[in-house]
Amino acid sequence: MTASSSSSSSYPRPYPTLNPPPSDFAVKLEAPGVLHVSLSRGKLNPWSHTMTLEMRRIFDTLATDPLVDVVVLSGEGRAFCAGLDVGSSQLADLASDEGEEPAQPDPARIAFGLKQHIDEFQASLTSMEKCMKPVISAVHGIVFGLGVDLMCATDIRYADEESRFCIKEVDIGLCADIGSLQRFPKIVGNDSIARELAMTAREFGSEEALRIGFLSKVTKGGREGAVAAALATAALLVTKSPVALRSTKQVMLHARDHSVAEGLDYVSTWNSAMLQSRDIPKAMAGALSKQKIRFSRL
Amino acid sequence: MTASSSSSSSYPRPYPTLNPPPSDFAVKLEAPGVLHVSLSRGKLNPWSHTMTLEMRRIFDTLATDPLVDVVVLSGEGRAFCAGLDVGSSQLADLASDEGEEPAQPDPARIAFGLKQHIDEFQASLTSMEKCMKPVISAVHGIVFGLGVDLMCATDIRYADEESRFCIKEVDIGLCADIGSLQRFPKIVGNDSIARELAMTAREFGSEEALRIGFLSKVTKGGREGAVAAALATAALLVTKSPVALRSTKQVMLHARDHSVAEGLDYVSTWNSAMLQSRDIPKAMAGALSKQKIRFSRL
Amino acid sequence: MTASSSSSSSYPRPYPTLNPPPSDFAVKLEAPGVLHVSLSRGKLNPWSHTMTLEMRRIFDTLATDPLVDVVVLSGEGRAFCAGLDVGSSQLADLASDEGEEPAQPDPARIAFGLKQHIDEFQASLTSMEKCMKPVISAVHGIVFGLGVDLMCATDIRYADEESRFCIKEVDIGLCADIGSLQRFPKIVGNDSIARELAMTAREFGSEEALRIGFLSKVTKGGREGAVAAALATAALLVTKSPVALRSTKQVMLHARDHSVAEGLDYVSTWNSAMLQSRDIPKAMAGALSKQKIRFSRL
Amino acid sequence: MTASSSSSSSYPRPYPTLNPPPSDFAVKLEAPGVLHVSLSRGKLNPWSHTMTLEMRRIFDTLATDPLVDVVVLSGEGRAFCAGLDVGSSQLADLASDEGEEPAQPDPARIAFGLKQHIDEFQASLTSMEKCMKPVISAVHGIVFGLGVDLMCATDIRYADEESRFCIKEVDIGLCADIGSLQRFPKIVGNDSIARELAMTAREFGSEEALRIGFLSKVTKGGREGAVAAALATAALLVTKSPVALRSTKQVMLHARDHSVAEGLDYVSTWNSAMLQSRDIPKAMAGALSKQKIRFSRL
Amino acid sequence: MTASSSSSSSYPRPYPTLNPPPSDFAVKLEAPGVLHVSLSRGKLNPWSHTMTLEMRRIFDTLATDPLVDVVVLSGEGRAFCAGLDVGSSQLADLASDEGEEPAQPDPARIAFGLKQHIDEFQASLTSMEKCMKPVISAVHGIVFGLGVDLMCATDIRYADEESRFCIKEVDIGLCADIGSLQRFPKIVGNDSIARELAMTAREFGSEEALRIGFLSKVTKGGREGAVAAALATAALLVTKSPVALRSTKQVMLHARDHSVAEGLDYVSTWNSAMLQSRDIPKAMAGALSKQKIRFSRL
Amino acid sequence: MTASSSSSSSYPRPYPTLNPPPSDFAVKLEAPGVLHVSLSRGKLNPWSHTMTLEMRRIFDTLATDPLVDVVVLSGEGRAFCAGLDVGSSQLADLASDEGEEPAQPDPARIAFGLKQHIDEFQASLTSMEKCMKPVISAVHGIVFGLGVDLMCATDIRYADEESRFCIKEVDIGLCADIGSLQRFPKIVGNDSIARELAMTAREFGSEEALRIGFLSKVTKGGREGAVAAALATAALLVTKSPVALRSTKQVMLHARDHSVAEGLDYVSTWNSAMLQSRDIPKAMAGALSKQKIRFSRL
Repeated sequence: MTASSSSSSSYPRPYPTLNPPPSDFAVKLEAPGVLHVSLSRGKLNPWSHTMTLEMRRIFDTLATDPLVDVVVLSGEGRAFCAGLDVGSSQLADLASDEGEEPAQPDPARIAFGLKQHIDEFQASLTSMEKCMKPVISAVHGIVFGLGVDLMCATDIRYADEESRFCIKEVDIGLCADIGSLQRFPKIVGNDSIARELAMTAREFGSEEALRIGFLSKVTKGGREGAVAAALATAALLVTKSPVALRSTKQVMLHARDHSVAEGLDYVSTWNSAMLQSRDIPKAMAGALSKQKIRFSRL
Repeated sequence: MTASSSSSSSYPRPYPTLNPPPSDFAVKLEAPGVLHVSLSRGKLNPWSHTMTLEMRRIFDTLATDPLVDVVVLSGEGRAFCAGLDVGSSQLADLASDEGEEPAQPDPARIAFGLKQHIDEFQASLTSMEKCMKPVISAVHGIVFGLGVDLMCATDIRYADEESRFCIKEVDIGLCADIGSLQRFPKIVGNDSIARELAMTAREFGSEEALRIGFLSKVTKGGREGAVAAALATAALLVTKSPVALRSTKQVMLHARDHSVAEGLDYVSTWNSAMLQSRDIPKAMAGALSKQKIRFSRL
Repeated sequence: MTASSSSSSSYPRPYPTLNPPPSDFAVKLEAPGVLHVSLSRGKLNPWSHTMTLEMRRIFDTLATDPLVDVVVLSGEGRAFCAGLDVGSSQLADLASDEGEEPAQPDPARIAFGLKQHIDEFQASLTSMEKCMKPVISAVHGIVFGLGVDLMCATDIRYADEESRFCIKEVDIGLCADIGSLQRFPKIVGNDSIARELAMTAREFGSEEALRIGFLSKVTKGGREGAVAAALATAALLVTKSPVALRSTKQVMLHARDHSVAEGLDYVSTWNSAMLQSRDIPKAMAGALSKQKIRFSRL
Repeated sequence: MTASSSSSSSYPRPYPTLNPPPSDFAVKLEAPGVLHVSLSRGKLNPWSHTMTLEMRRIFDTLATDPLVDVVVLSGEGRAFCAGLDVGSSQLADLASDEGEEPAQPDPARIAFGLKQHIDEFQASLTSMEKCMKPVISAVHGIVFGLGVDLMCATDIRYADEESRFCIKEVDIGLCADIGSLQRFPKIVGNDSIARELAMTAREFGSEEALRIGFLSKVTKGGREGAVAAALATAALLVTKSPVALRSTKQVMLHARDHSVAEGLDYVSTWNSAMLQSRDIPKAMAGALSKQKIRFSRL
Repeated sequence: MTASSSSSSSYPRPYPTLNPPPSDFAVKLEAPGVLHVSLSRGKLNPWSHTMTLEMRRIFDTLATDPLVDVVVLSGEGRAFCAGLDVGSSQLADLASDEGEEPAQPDPARIAFGLKQHIDEFQASLTSMEKCMKPVISAVHGIVFGLGVDLMCATDIRYADEESRFCIKEVDIGLCADIGSLQRFPKIVGNDSIARELAMTAREFGSEEALRIGFLSKVTKGGREGAVAAALATAALLVTKSPVALRSTKQVMLHARDHSVAEGLDYVSTWNSAMLQSRDIPKAMAGALSKQKIRFSRL
Repeated sequence: MTASSSSSSSYPRPYPTLNPPPSDFAVKLEAPGVLHVSLSRGKLNPWSHTMTLEMRRIFDTLATDPLVDVVVLSGEGRAFCAGLDVGSSQLADLASDEGEEPAQPDPARIAFGLKQHIDEFQASLTSMEKCMKPVISAVHGIVFGLGVDLMCATDIRYADEESRFCIKEVDIGLCADIGSLQRFPKIVGNDSIARELAMTAREFGSEEALRIGFLSKVTKGGREGAVAAALATAALLVTKSPVALRSTKQVMLHARDHSVAEGLDYVSTWNSAMLQSRDIPKAMAGALSKQKIRFSRL
């Protein structure tokens, strides 16, 4: 089935592949190949343990679903994400030993439980990075703590002009552990500003976020404006060869974490298969004829 | 002893833990938990071999001293640091073989001596990076050669608007070897500008330094202005949980030098202990009650 | 022979060391120690397989030639480089199995051929990075696809104000594999903008390229302006100690791909030999006497 | 519940946590804390795609199950595992494009499918490595191809004296891709013998496998002998502190893939939590009193 | 042309692809697909600078020559290789500055020359490792210094029972720099014995070399016996799919230098192309029918 | 002063450089250039915190002392080292929070203290690895826990035939954290046997230790025999060029922790200085004349 084969259908429409649908996310197909995943838990989308589990299920599902080429991530309500819902998270339980001798909690056993919990939490957000399909975050309002972690695991970041960002964790007595400290400095490419923001928990706005390279674009009109800009970019991306697009994401993720020499060896290995794609002559013919090409699903 | 237990004392006051006090640095407690380390060797603070030894002793001492939570680094006199004092350094001696057959210097034996000398020199500056407590550099005037190396090993960088920076080494016939070539590109996240500045030894001012991300803030009023801004940030940082603050520094240093996957595993291991801290419920309670929290010393 | 020993000769003049001269490049000595390598294949310099072979020969030759200290890379005609000349490249041939049983092409055998082809192509551009002598690219007009790969392998990048850049590969159905995806994000230090540009194949101009750190300087006056600026920087660089200059390039390339600790060990090993250079006392004496120094060839 | 709280129960007994039970594996608790996982698919246990899925489910389940401390892996029937069941695997399907234009299979799209398939397959076996609980393989008879991959992902390897091993893949026209080429050389610590065995597909017996370090022990009596030896070691391991045992596995896996310096930093971070365990005073008291200790479940 | 298509030709016969033939090596085709490269410089094959250049030319040539599938490396005369021919090497010249001011040699300029010389020397031997075709060394007599470096860069090592090995460099006042210190410990997998042998320059015989894993096989009958054993293994290897064989070498070299996780990702990328090979169904059909298969050249 | 200049002096004799002498070690010069460091704390040499501090001081001192070329490490009394002296170590104190609110110990603050303690402990043993001079351990009797850690940080390992080894930590409820889990698998090159020994805490004797490659030699005659063998090897090593010997240690340590390609680049950089040594012509002349050479001190 080609990307446009369902173009007569009305969009947006439900996303049939996820069954049962998640409870704290709204997921819908906005256009052929474009899936919109929205945090949908109250006005400020405080993150619950349920969301950790659901996010991983959503992205593991769409990763292999030929109906999806590009993903937009946003938050419903007044803000993208105000951070962790401390009450709903498992942290409080985990940080006390629920074993057989509760009177003497064992810090080692608690530590095993906490590490496993953090690893799962990280894996949930990393599922966005691993899915090989471009993910565009479109945020508005408060983007604190986990909200920043979420954005860091996406590929392209847009925000409404009135968004407010904060690497908040140090203010609740801990160091961020779901990805911001690892990814943010590599996104903005500036270890200096990253350290300052993480150590002071200072709020910063969209303009500064754009200037330091955390954002690619600042939009107007609140959530709607940000999402519209993301959907426009998504509409552009679905016209590209999916072989080329996913290869680019995979190869860039590899390059980020390796030396240039290792990255070059990896991409030449990768492309030894991919350069045999029929998409290349198709794309070249399209470029010559100035006609739009329909690439096969991948 | 809590951070504020000595709040009735007058500040600044001497730093009692270092004994004997260093000769080429002025070290004093500016506020509870805030240590101010100043280069203090003539007007331009040319760096001597004594300073290499003293800096390491200062930072190895404060690293484990519960009286210190945050460090400010500045230079007394007309400039932060004009570079290496070639006469006072050991380089000239080292570069000629002082062995038993001086008539035939052995380049290999000289090389062993030079490597050991450079390793020690690097270790002295790296002691700032390793101490786990945030270090804010506040500079003014000329910041050449070793002055840039010094700033690169701090976490947050402020400078007076009239500061002048230069990766000067190539102009005296050598490649910088005390950290600038390793850290500067990762601080500014721009390999291109880093190579140009290092190859041409071109001077650049505070405005450009801010724009490329070497500085977090440009201040007015000479040394006083820069130091005042640094002390203000230090005053903010000492209100944070020291568990959270030091964890953040340690984890970000690890992340800088590892892949994202390795960084995530490290922080989840780290936080398996740290999330058991009593600072977290304290900080959360403080956030709810809007009251200021006193964290225990670490 | 010292750098200025041929200063009475007229420049530019032919580069005698390359024999036979390449067919698709113009190579000349613009000044003592300064080699200018120009793409010279039609108006838009579409890249041919011949150029891959010739570029490697040029840079392997100049790497060990004491006549050359600095290199300027530009493109003759209307543009620096419009990308790969698909017809002239070997890709079409390689992507179909030319073995004994053409009726049933074997994707594995094709893959071996493609990997070898990409590896050779990469090695050609990497020869610029490996040559230890600073390479300054000075571009104008269209800089698409391979044009960006080429710039990424140089040390300093200047461009005319009307240049247009594009990481174009995704538009012809493939992921870039000659270095842009590996080097561009480390040059600009911003993984976010790099991913967006590579995924969308969006064109960007000189102003944006300067802002994100891909360029060090934007010039006026078309190709001439860009080349003049590059030659001016080259003229500055040839006055430096070649020991210091090449060491700086080598050490920064190592630092880019290693942790800070590994980089520090490498530079102290490197400098254990290089600090014994006679260039250092020469340079210091020159700095004191304010006289120009002539360093020996390296 | 302590490890011995169910000592009055009869063993072996079913493993209740897996529900529904897998179809191609027999899984039972052989003793308190000791789970025995047996390949159970015909006489030679040819590996099916179902087994890939079931193995991951088994190990993901037991990884967090406090009933399990140690795992024994064996094969029912005449052999541990004769390799991949080519008919039952998905490879044949995957290697031909099942897309919309079957007449022109696209090698790039096939490659995406194959990579995803191999990644899943690897993840299934890696689940043994990741589960933090020691896994002892006890094999007999033919151990070819995937059989070797399976053993490589376990911690301790025992085999009957008449076992026959072979890294067989090269004989069916491919290079092994489920872990043998990565793990075998690091297990035996001898790159030379590893390359010879992988390139020639030469069979080798238990004696040679012991000598080169692939096995820790050679047993007599066929499958029963090997399993009995493994269960005896498992019985020893369940008497150890689970904090110590799992820490040891985790830390050694990290050390295998990192430099000594990185490994040391990791274990000191790890043990900053684990040295707070109540198991340490318990174990010390036990050592002094020569009494057997019961450690709490983890 | 299939591997056996020239089976009616008489072997050994000259190797036509190398032109002109090297002066210090004898190179001949011993059987279809099997190239025998012999050091041929006097009785003890002392290594000359010419040999460095010729070896690289030989291996760069055969790397892409479809006539060659497997290589055997041996030494004519009384020994495989007694080490560097100090007189014929360039070291003596390089270690003194031949620049403009010979009275004052510059250790830094000498160092540049030496590094370039060592890099070239290393690259020559590394060409054996990089050629993707299995290389079997078959040695006899004295194997000292560079002789060990040479063997370390091959895949499989056989030796006559009376061979004598020595990592000799420390006895002539230097540390080995052409690969032994890097590869030997990873071949034998025993850092301890490697350090002892390198530090003491102690001779060791074939039996010990076999026991520590440096050799795969010890043969009788001097050079003839070792070469015959190597040719027998080569005869076996040429019956394998060249896709499988070369993939195995490439993937194992990658695995040696990376973590298991990185190695697994690399091989799944590699095999996403290679599993599409027609060799796999051919090999499987051959295995079922017990008939010998002819694979196409690669 | 050359190595033999004090040959008329009587040996063994005190080591004058260490002042004050350590309390729990006996340190003496056994021969010119050969320092013997013995654990000297009761019959079984249980390790105390004092020893951690003293060992670092000893090795930091000898690292730069021209009187010392080679070190032998042994234990006086009935055993090399029976492990940590739990009573004398700081662990018990550290594992409980000695802060202001002892009733509620903070696991996070305890963790900071523990990490710092382990880091210091590791650094003490790593000082043997870092000192660049070969260290030979010569052990007898019980070698448990820390005793194995100590041996792992030396270069060459000899043991009396009746020695008994054990990676004991798991039996006292913790995972070894002073180096065994990092170094032992790389010493024996066998991850399999390393995991089994670490997980089971099984004792093993000298014969097995020799077979798996942990030892280079097994001696007779108790402590005297082992020490005599080590001194004989030390006597051989002091006749070598110290430039060559220390280079070999440094380069092999680097190679152990890096890829072959990185190791090759490092050694060519290293030797670009070291090949300029006067020791090389001296050593060559000595080899020709069969005369003993005296190398200058380093």
